[in-house]
Amino acid sequence: MEACNREGSRNVKLVLEYDGTRYCGFQRQVGVPTIQAKLEAAIEAITKMYSHVTAAGRTDAGAHAIGQVVNFRTCSGMSAEKFVPALNSVLPRDIRIISSEEVPWEFHARYDARWKTYEYSIDTRRVPSVFTRNFTYHLSIPLDLEEMRIAAGFLVGIHDFRSFVSSGGSAKTFTRNVRGLEIKTCDDPILRILVEADGFLYNMVRIVVGTLLEVGRGKIASEDVRYIRDAGDRRLAGPTAPARGLCLIRVEYGNDSNLQ
Amino acid sequence: MEACNREGSRNVKLVLEYDGTRYCGFQRQVGVPTIQAKLEAAIEAITKMYSHVTAAGRTDAGAHAIGQVVNFRTCSGMSAEKFVPALNSVLPRDIRIISSEEVPWEFHARYDARWKTYEYSIDTRRVPSVFTRNFTYHLSIPLDLEEMRIAAGFLVGIHDFRSFVSSGGSAKTFTRNVRGLEIKTCDDPILRILVEADGFLYNMVRIVVGTLLEVGRGKIASEDVRYIRDAGDRRLAGPTAPARGLCLIRVEYGNDSNLQ
Repeated sequence: MEACNREGSRNVKLVLEYDGTRYCGFQRQVGVPTIQAKLEAAIEAITKMYSHVTAAGRTDAGAHAIGQVVNFRTCSGMSAEKFVPALNSVLPRDIRIISSEEVPWEFHARYDARWKTYEYSIDTRRVPSVFTRNFTYHLSIPLDLEEMRIAAGFLVGIHDFRSFVSSGGSAKTFTRNVRGLEIKTCDDPILRILVEADGFLYNMVRIVVGTLLEVGRGKIASEDVRYIRDAGDRRLAGPTAPARGLCLIRVEYGNDSNLQ
Repeated sequence: MEACNREGSRNVKLVLEYDGTRYCGFQRQVGVPTIQAKLEAAIEAITKMYSHVTAAGRTDAGAHAIGQVVNFRTCSGMSAEKFVPALNSVLPRDIRIISSEEVPWEFHARYDARWKTYEYSIDTRRVPSVFTRNFTYHLSIPLDLEEMRIAAGFLVGIHDFRSFVSSGGSAKTFTRNVRGLEIKTCDDPILRILVEADGFLYNMVRIVVGTLLEVGRGKIASEDVRYIRDAGDRRLAGPTAPARGLCLIRVEYGNDSNLQ
């Protein structure tokens, strides 16, 4: 139920970050804590009206965000910028609003998203750091980064990614445009895998990462990733890497500056 | 009660890190979770014998460590190096053993420590990062770093630090040698204050930081810190900064390589 119709209501865009450790993902589910439920409760506490929140990316249970984008419509008279301090004053400390602005009424955080970037972090220390334990996957084995980069090359571009999707997703098409897939070691000992695409299938980043890690440890040959991609068979790809290493970094919108 | 006497027993030194968020400090207290209690329970689970654990620094409730050093004596036949995987297999994920080695029987983690370094981290972002929220103090106001550095200069050297101690400590003398007190902004937006000394009084780092922050915001003049230092009066110094920004970084021992 939307609290108000187009007349007299505004569309507010928020950029937020969260530590997803203690949440069952973004999307509202009955009886379990979710980011969406916390956000909607906070908006209702501030505006005294229910607003449905739409997210650019419905992150998994235990996954994180530093640049999630959401929008909601409200008839609250509060200026859009005020939602940053107001919502932060009622949200739990593991969810923070970074910015808020009024956007055109038609703006939709998910449908209008043009590019999304996820980062997957792997702690390669022998003993995992206590400080990043909830934000990384700990894997302390030698990885052949050169082979991983060759394999990653086969996944860049416009492809059918049905080999890299878990069952249970709602996607009707499996073609996605992966604009970048970068394996970064600049701030050793955390290995970071950045994936940028026009959209992602259910668990796609985690399966791509799981597959690249199999290549890194020599279980899958880098050149086989091309065939895995083309086979359209989930069973050929690697395992789904744990959610805690995953973070939604950035969402890009069109050239219209109001939608940036 | 020590489980065994000098004959047949060995002295084991551990370097460990911990996220102190959910602990009431290092030191064992009845009825509350502490790092010492978790460590002693883990050692007992592995060796089937109680060993008392002695730490270089008894960190406060909510404070952290990346280079805490402890020692304990045991008659366990396990080789010292094996304690890393063995203890990590039973310890909670927010406490990790980084290294272990056998040291001379006389080695005492606290009495033999020559230099200790603490780091205090301040998140200066307007909205605090969810990822460092438990490891930093959030303070988003303009700070005059030049004035803070001038003030810090008055606290370097051999001084009586009784203006910078909370009541309740066990120290008999208040003279300490502060070898370094550095205010680092290299990895903005986290401001880091590093304090290196031959020993620390109860809450000394947190009161020094609280005082420097008062200087930074213009509440205390930098040159007054010299008089605050010499007055020997806790009421003149700034407030005690929150424990969650504090981390024991490093403990240095004598030149004997066995004690490093």
